[in-house]
Amino acid sequence: SRSINLAVIPGDGIGQEVVTEGLKVLSAVLPQDVKLETKEYDFGARRYHATGETLTDADLDALKKHDAILLGAIGDPSVPSGVLERGFLLKLRFAFDHHVNLRPSKLLPGVATPLAGEPEIDFVVVREGTEGPYTGNGGTIRKGTEHEVATEVSVNTAFGVERVVRDAFARAQARPRKKLALIHKNNVLTFAGHLWTNIFNKVAEEFPEVTTEYMHVDAATIYLVTQPERFDVIVTDNLFGDIVTDLAAAVSGGIGVAASGNINPSGDFPSMFEPVHGSAPDIAGQGKADPTATVLSVALLLRHLGHEAEADRIDEAVAADLSERTGKPARSTTEIGDALAVRVAG
Amino acid sequence: SRSINLAVIPGDGIGQEVVTEGLKVLSAVLPQDVKLETKEYDFGARRYHATGETLTDADLDALKKHDAILLGAIGDPSVPSGVLERGFLLKLRFAFDHHVNLRPSKLLPGVATPLAGEPEIDFVVVREGTEGPYTGNGGTIRKGTEHEVATEVSVNTAFGVERVVRDAFARAQARPRKKLALIHKNNVLTFAGHLWTNIFNKVAEEFPEVTTEYMHVDAATIYLVTQPERFDVIVTDNLFGDIVTDLAAAVSGGIGVAASGNINPSGDFPSMFEPVHGSAPDIAGQGKADPTATVLSVALLLRHLGHEAEADRIDEAVAADLSERTGKPARSTTEIGDALAVRVAG
Ligand SMILES: CC(C)[C@H](C(=O)O)[C@@H](O)C(=O)O
Ligand SMILES: CC(C)[C@H](C(=O)O)[C@@H](O)C(=O)O
Repeated sequence: SRSINLAVIPGDGIGQEVVTEGLKVLSAVLPQDVKLETKEYDFGARRYHATGETLTDADLDALKKHDAILLGAIGDPSVPSGVLERGFLLKLRFAFDHHVNLRPSKLLPGVATPLAGEPEIDFVVVREGTEGPYTGNGGTIRKGTEHEVATEVSVNTAFGVERVVRDAFARAQARPRKKLALIHKNNVLTFAGHLWTNIFNKVAEEFPEVTTEYMHVDAATIYLVTQPERFDVIVTDNLFGDIVTDLAAAVSGGIGVAASGNINPSGDFPSMFEPVHGSAPDIAGQGKADPTATVLSVALLLRHLGHEAEADRIDEAVAADLSERTGKPARSTTEIGDALAVRVAG
Repeated sequence: SRSINLAVIPGDGIGQEVVTEGLKVLSAVLPQDVKLETKEYDFGARRYHATGETLTDADLDALKKHDAILLGAIGDPSVPSGVLERGFLLKLRFAFDHHVNLRPSKLLPGVATPLAGEPEIDFVVVREGTEGPYTGNGGTIRKGTEHEVATEVSVNTAFGVERVVRDAFARAQARPRKKLALIHKNNVLTFAGHLWTNIFNKVAEEFPEVTTEYMHVDAATIYLVTQPERFDVIVTDNLFGDIVTDLAAAVSGGIGVAASGNINPSGDFPSMFEPVHGSAPDIAGQGKADPTATVLSVALLLRHLGHEAEADRIDEAVAADLSERTGKPARSTTEIGDALAVRVAG
């Protein structure tokens, strides 16, 4: 489409800094005839402290009108753990039915990895985003006493699993290697495990060209550090996806370059794009944050909206920038953003 | 005590091979006046195929009479996923209340790690063994239909959490660095997360010398590959413990050297010791399996039974053996066992 109406949520900590650079690169990459409109929203710790609100129905109505959402980071030590996560981040994912949480991992030339050797890493994790142990089901009885019992319920539906598994198969089918791994723990979590495994095997019949494998989540963490080249596309549940994507980010260049999309493929609600990293309050406001993960999230956003060529230009600019970093002095957040903006415009 | 009455469960795949070597080293290290009695049990895939049984009440009664249990590995592709895991391994852990699942990770000199540089890794994970998402709570409705819903319930009790947290604090207190990290996901799994966090903070008051930190499980996987030297003792729930201990094994020399104890500190039931690796059916019967993890599990077993000096001798023998491996041709299971037996006897 010839216009993008973007909701921008800088959030907390380094969020504002990295989002500024993300928008800079976005403006630079868009052709003149694509009109970019942005509206900033003040969600996060400040709003919570000022009003007690994290995300109201009116907020959701306002966000709903946008084509997509760009988020920096949400979270601050001044807010009790869980309040902004459950009250904002997860609330938004559930409200907008962001069931495909897309997290690519690619180790680019010149980028440092904690792994020895020079592993070839280029895979994408499709993490389910609206079910599993993230639903908030569960509860506590006898709180604070020696007889307290707390439960967490992982909810898995055929509907929810099938749509994300199908999405992952389609992505695998579209990639050169056409490989898809299901990660679960079906030998222990047998109820959910059978549901995931059966649906995975059923959908596999529709994609005869895709090579599949199953792997327990514990074994997957081993392969991620010993044979990361083994992976092409991974599909997994919400919690396992949370865990393996942080590990995947760590081995493929760190969370400074890890992008993610919270996608609703139906288009009924805007999708949301954000760096995998958090708000990093320890370095906030110092110009030290690497905006690359946010810039790569902008590329995911553009690809989602059909601006493939522009997304590719950003990916190429980032790859070029990263390949020239070794041995150079560290640059500020703004300097990296400026450099990327110049590259995508050139 | 001056006698050890040991239950031996070779199990499936490479289980028999590695257990043979474990027992060889055990016999070699024990002083003459310690009487070792062993009784072998045939649990695993063969027994299941022959009788349909995995672990009966009579089996539990028989096992109960031993001082400890040594297990090789359980699991075979011929048995549906979950049958032996839930029907034997987890059933035994629950029946004997093995609530402290102890998994040390130490990168020994000369041992290869997938991590770059030469990280110093020496920590121990105390994984809760009888609660969390491992209880088998949950279920399925409308199985096999497009309306299937499958749930898994993580059950966490103040009783269960406090005893394992206390055990971990005591272990941290006894180590030179006196550090303890709680790993959870308390910003999303807020019910269980609050229970774990509150109890952790409460017990911490009794151990003022122990330095504590909290870490989300996703962040923990990053630290395990970027700063593994950061960890001393980790305490965590059953599922997170399963995941981080496989990753920990991978970075500290591989599952070929990862030992574990399923411990009931009360002594009401025998504790069980086993290598972290599985039955590896692809290499079974070929003399290729590394028995080191089983031998190190024997050391944990001896330490648990109060034979500290013998446990130390095994640890030293393994360290010496590993330090001399580089550049040498691979040895068979028996050759490694023989070499370790000679060392501990010498
Ligand atoms: C902050 C938290 C709710 C979130 C999650 O667990 O999904 C984060 O870790 C992520 O991966 O986006
Ligand atoms: C085989 C399985 C039941 C087991 C577990 O998940 O605990 C294994 O992975 C382990 O870590 O001992």
